[in-house]
Amino acid sequence: MINRLIDNIKKTNAPIVVGLDPMLSYIPEHITQKAYAEYGETLKGAAEAIFEYNKGIVDAIYDIIPAVKPQVAMYEQFGIEGMIAFKKTVDYCKDKGLVVIGDIKRGDIGSTSQAYAVGHLGRVKVGNNVYSGFDEDFVTVNPYLGTDGIKPFVDVCKEEKKGIFILVKTSNPSSGEFQDRLIDGRPLYEYVGEQVAKWGEEVMGNGYSYVGAVVGATYPEQGKILRKVMPKSFILVPGYGAQGGKGKDLVHYFNEDGLGAIVNSSRGIICAYKQEAYAKFGSLNYADASRQATIDMINDINSARG
Amino acid sequence: MINRLIDNIKKTNAPIVVGLDPMLSYIPEHITQKAYAEYGETLKGAAEAIFEYNKGIVDAIYDIIPAVKPQVAMYEQFGIEGMIAFKKTVDYCKDKGLVVIGDIKRGDIGSTSQAYAVGHLGRVKVGNNVYSGFDEDFVTVNPYLGTDGIKPFVDVCKEEKKGIFILVKTSNPSSGEFQDRLIDGRPLYEYVGEQVAKWGEEVMGNGYSYVGAVVGATYPEQGKILRKVMPKSFILVPGYGAQGGKGKDLVHYFNEDGLGAIVNSSRGIICAYKQEAYAKFGSLNYADASRQATIDMINDINSARG
Repeated sequence: MINRLIDNIKKTNAPIVVGLDPMLSYIPEHITQKAYAEYGETLKGAAEAIFEYNKGIVDAIYDIIPAVKPQVAMYEQFGIEGMIAFKKTVDYCKDKGLVVIGDIKRGDIGSTSQAYAVGHLGRVKVGNNVYSGFDEDFVTVNPYLGTDGIKPFVDVCKEEKKGIFILVKTSNPSSGEFQDRLIDGRPLYEYVGEQVAKWGEEVMGNGYSYVGAVVGATYPEQGKILRKVMPKSFILVPGYGAQGGKGKDLVHYFNEDGLGAIVNSSRGIICAYKQEAYAKFGSLNYADASRQATIDMINDINSARG
Repeated sequence: MINRLIDNIKKTNAPIVVGLDPMLSYIPEHITQKAYAEYGETLKGAAEAIFEYNKGIVDAIYDIIPAVKPQVAMYEQFGIEGMIAFKKTVDYCKDKGLVVIGDIKRGDIGSTSQAYAVGHLGRVKVGNNVYSGFDEDFVTVNPYLGTDGIKPFVDVCKEEKKGIFILVKTSNPSSGEFQDRLIDGRPLYEYVGEQVAKWGEEVMGNGYSYVGAVVGATYPEQGKILRKVMPKSFILVPGYGAQGGKGKDLVHYFNEDGLGAIVNSSRGIICAYKQEAYAKFGSLNYADASRQATIDMINDINSARG
C-alpha cells in the first residue's frame, strides 16, 4: 500500500492528504436539512448528512489528491450510525481510487492490538468465512505501550500489504509535555522515532517502509531531525493550515527524492467555504471551494519545495 | 460515577472488574452454533454469539461484582456488527446495575478528543435533539498527546459526572520501552502519574477523583510508588491472572481506607471453563465456571489484603 500511496502522489504531484473530519457545524444547511427531512434530527440523520457532505467533497477533489484521512472520532461521536457513515466514507473513497488513512490512533497490547489491526486493516474469520470490518489502507497508531502494542499491527500489515503511521511528535501545543522530555539529553520523540525506523525494517516496500510516522507541521525543527532518524519512513504531517503550519515549514520533512512526507489538511479544505478567501463560492458550492483550497494548498507546498 | 463505583465495591466487598473481552475461540459451541444457525457464519452471527456469551456471564456474576470492562477492540474487529454487540453489552450491564468501564484507550487532541469523549461518555447534539452514542460510565484514555488530549475528556466528565482511567504504567512486558525511560532520574510513568493527579484535582468525588489511572498488576513496585504519587486517583489494575499478577502483589495498590484500586481479570474469568481448575463445569455451564472463578479471585485479593 505504501507503493500505491507513492504512485498516487507521483500521479497527482500532490504530497497531500485531505482530512475528512466532519463536524455538523461545517455542513451546509441544504445537506443537513435534506438528511433531517428524511431521517429526522436523529443519529441516523446526522450520519447521513456527514456522508453526503463527504461525498460532495470527494467528488470534487478525488482526481487531484492521492489520499484521504477520515478521523474516526468525528464519526464515533454519533455512535453506531456514525460508524456506518465512517465505513461508507472509507468504501466510497477507495472506489474513487484514493488511499484511505484511517486516523484511529488505536493502541493496546498483544491480542487486543491484533484485534484493532484485524478490524481496521485485516480480515477476521467467522466459521469458514473471512470478513473485513472497516478495511482502511493505513491507520494511525499510538506507541505509548511499546513494541507489544505495535508488533501485531506490523504483522497484519505484512500479511495484507497495508501500513501504519505511528505517533511520534504530534502537532498540538502540549505535545511536548511527555514527548519532549529529555532522556540522556535526547527527547522521547527521538527514541520513538528510532523504534519506528526499527519496526519498519522488516516491512519494506519499494524504498519506503509500510511503517510511517506522524510528525506535526507545527514543529519544523523536530521534523528536520526526525526525517534523518527515520529515513525510510513516510511522515504523515498534521497541523498544516488551520493549526498554523505553512508550506515553507515543511521542506525538511521530505527526502531528496522529493518523497517521504504527506501533509494533511482537514478543516482548511473541507470547511473552506466558511473562510473569507473562499466565501465567494457560497455554501451551495462548498465542494468547489474545497477544490480551490486543495489546489492552493498543493501550490503552497510545491512552490516551497522549489 | 466514581462515587457509584465505590458504592458498588463496598456493597460487593469486591474491588474487582471483569473484562468482557470475548474472542470467538472462547465461546462455547452451543452458543456459536445457535447464532450461526440464525444469522449464518457472518459478522452479524459472530456479534450475536458474542453478545449471548457475555449475557450468560453477566447473568451469572452481576450480583457479586461492582463493574465490568468491555474491551472495544474485541468488538471493533467485527466491524459495525461488532460495535452493535459492544453497545448492547454496555446497555445490558448498565441495566444490571454494573458500572461499565469502556476499555477504549482513545486519545487525540482538542475537538477530536472531545468527539471521543462525547461519543463514549457524553451527549451529542443533532438539531434540537441530544443523543448518547455509546454511553459508558468510564473510559480508558492514552496520555501520549498531553494535556490537550486529556482536558476535553475531563470537561465531559465534569458535565456528565463520569470518569476516565489514564494509562500510566501498562501491564505488558515491553511497557518499559518508553514508560520507564528516566527523565532527570525519574521514569516517565511518574511524570504521567503526577499529571493524572493534577488533572484530577478539579473533578473530585467523595474522596476520589473522576480521573483515575491504569497501572499493571505485573509491576507491583511501580504500583506502590504510583499509589503515593496519585493518592486520590483510583487505580485500574490489569494483568491479574492470565498475565501473571497475583493478589499478594496488589496490596500496595490500595490506600489505607481499603479503597483506591479495582483489579481486572478478563480471560481468567470469562474463559474459566477452559482452565483445568474449572473444567468440571463443562462448556454448557461456562457461566457457572465464570462465577466460581470470580469468587476465587475476590477471595485471593481480599485474603491478601488481610
